Amino acid sequence: MSDRIVVIGGGPAGLEAAAMAGRLGAPVLIVEKRSHLGGAPIAESYAALTHGLQSAEELMGKMMAAATDLDRVEVRTESEVVAMSGTGGNFTVTISSNGSEETVDAGAIVLATGFQHFDPGRETQQYGYYEFPDVITIQDAEGMLKEETFVTPSTGKPPERVAFIQCVGSRDRQIGNEYCSKVCCGISSKQAIEVRQQVPDARVFIFYIDMRMYGYWENEIYWPAQEQHRVNYVKGIVTEVLAKNGRLIIRGEDTTMGRPMEVPMDVVVLAVGMEPSPGTRHMADILGIATNKYGFVETVHDVLDTVTTAVAGVYVCGSATGPADLDDTISSAGSAGAKAVAYLRSGAEVPA
Amino acid sequence: MSDRIVVIGGGPAGLEAAAMAGRLGAPVLIVEKRSHLGGAPIAESYAALTHGLQSAEELMGKMMAAATDLDRVEVRTESEVVAMSGTGGNFTVTISSNGSEETVDAGAIVLATGFQHFDPGRETQQYGYYEFPDVITIQDAEGMLKEETFVTPSTGKPPERVAFIQCVGSRDRQIGNEYCSKVCCGISSKQAIEVRQQVPDARVFIFYIDMRMYGYWENEIYWPAQEQHRVNYVKGIVTEVLAKNGRLIIRGEDTTMGRPMEVPMDVVVLAVGMEPSPGTRHMADILGIATNKYGFVETVHDVLDTVTTAVAGVYVCGSATGPADLDDTISSAGSAGAKAVAYLRSGAEVPA
Repeated sequence: MSDRIVVIGGGPAGLEAAAMAGRLGAPVLIVEKRSHLGGAPIAESYAALTHGLQSAEELMGKMMAAATDLDRVEVRTESEVVAMSGTGGNFTVTISSNGSEETVDAGAIVLATGFQHFDPGRETQQYGYYEFPDVITIQDAEGMLKEETFVTPSTGKPPERVAFIQCVGSRDRQIGNEYCSKVCCGISSKQAIEVRQQVPDARVFIFYIDMRMYGYWENEIYWPAQEQHRVNYVKGIVTEVLAKNGRLIIRGEDTTMGRPMEVPMDVVVLAVGMEPSPGTRHMADILGIATNKYGFVETVHDVLDTVTTAVAGVYVCGSATGPADLDDTISSAGSAGAKAVAYLRSGAEVPA
Repeated sequence: MSDRIVVIGGGPAGLEAAAMAGRLGAPVLIVEKRSHLGGAPIAESYAALTHGLQSAEELMGKMMAAATDLDRVEVRTESEVVAMSGTGGNFTVTISSNGSEETVDAGAIVLATGFQHFDPGRETQQYGYYEFPDVITIQDAEGMLKEETFVTPSTGKPPERVAFIQCVGSRDRQIGNEYCSKVCCGISSKQAIEVRQQVPDARVFIFYIDMRMYGYWENEIYWPAQEQHRVNYVKGIVTEVLAKNGRLIIRGEDTTMGRPMEVPMDVVVLAVGMEPSPGTRHMADILGIATNKYGFVETVHDVLDTVTTAVAGVYVCGSATGPADLDDTISSAGSAGAKAVAYLRSGAEVPA
């Protein structure tokens, strides 16, 4: 019986799970594929976080410190779990770091391998992401917003008109992603506010099906976006992005007005949805845990539980289980880290 | 220094927090105002839970057992916390049970006092809740659906036409609730499916502003509601409910079609939003923790944290902090219970 908890993934979920387990007294090993901790917010240069609008770099820095300042928490970056054997309480985990392999024992495992963005070149080619330099994704926009240099990529000049297109790669049976990616409405609205702050003369439009600004996102982001920052929300469907006279044209239907639209834009931002990361798919395989038809990890469903998998001793958190915002992720990660500890403390006999 | 954790509230949040803290080895005392555990799902006779569509009674039964089967977890029902003194690690909590008071020591406190439904008689009188027996709320509907007797209240007969009106008491500056209550779209859609199952000849309409079927609610509830159960979703605003020739009439505007509507209905279900429960407001006062302008408890905002309050040793979870679905609640409650334990284990010196 090992009392070590191996946390796979060093993003927000993995850091929170590790900090929780570490504070509860368990030795923790974080295994992270990238050369750095911090997950997508750091790897993709997030500007402000949704919601709260505080600096991603600063808040992720605090999360990293909260985990790694604990003596009991060890970190392996540029490392991957390549094999797992044994059962709950007595796992043997094989880790590959720069070509060399080591095995460690672990009593429990927390999977925190997160999501990847939908690739808008795949089956949504009508938006021209790989064709037009001024068609970008929300993660491309984050990078520019973080540097406070939001420009039209092809000209390097501040844009006059910016459009966000929602639900790219989500709510779409054609491409097999029927689910809603949950966070894109909030992130796009946050970015729209940031664009208006950085380029005050720009007009900003968000084309949406339903604005899913649930809970406090409604009053903290959606209302200020409209009232203070004059972001234009248009309920409509964009079917095509074209180039004409050196400018982008978006074509579709304004469903509130019930009429076709054809509008010029300088920059088009695609609000691409969430899919399981390659790490999530791969680790689910290695750990022998079930995934749903989208490739996200399944939790047990016969109780109210958000983190327990069908394999005793293996827990999951954050967006490895499906679309999740940062609040979801922090809550489920804390719970997963703690359940892993509780599992070991009670001699691996805790019910789900 | 006490190692006991007092959990205030015995609903889903309190039960999960208590089970987690108990499994981690802490003695726990749950203080519940009602005569029974289980919170709103039991007190309000929920039918199936959103999402998952499993029996509320069965799942809440499992949650109760998971907490109360632990020797370390004690329960006081029909009891209220009436005073608190001391500081983190050394609180003294006064509990009133049937008129007699006792004091207990506690190292940490988890607040799990939840929400109450918006009262649709207050400032949304145009819907006629207190005027017409056939205008009901989603919690009234739950009770009928649980008994599998969904009828038109005034006649006792199965309804031919049922309408759900979304955002009653939410997204509304007039009444001071600008936030979105997050769960009402999902609950209404779930109930619409249940009505169609129990009364197959009924036509069911949902009048909405945005359908906030985030994450898997989209593919697990929203799509089946439309495709398998033929629920009619109408983007529109209902401004008034009237009675005419013994039937209800709803008046408003179909915003997709851009035309006024006046439609007869047998039953109108108001999707009333979430407000802080009286217990949440009252306990925040007693514990000295900050609330936002809506009366929900505030968590610290300078880190990514969903459960830590500004008072050291006091944690909060579930819908006491704002609109929350059951997944949010279970995750944050597990995290809160565990953070309370971690706080005590590290000599009350854990950072937020």
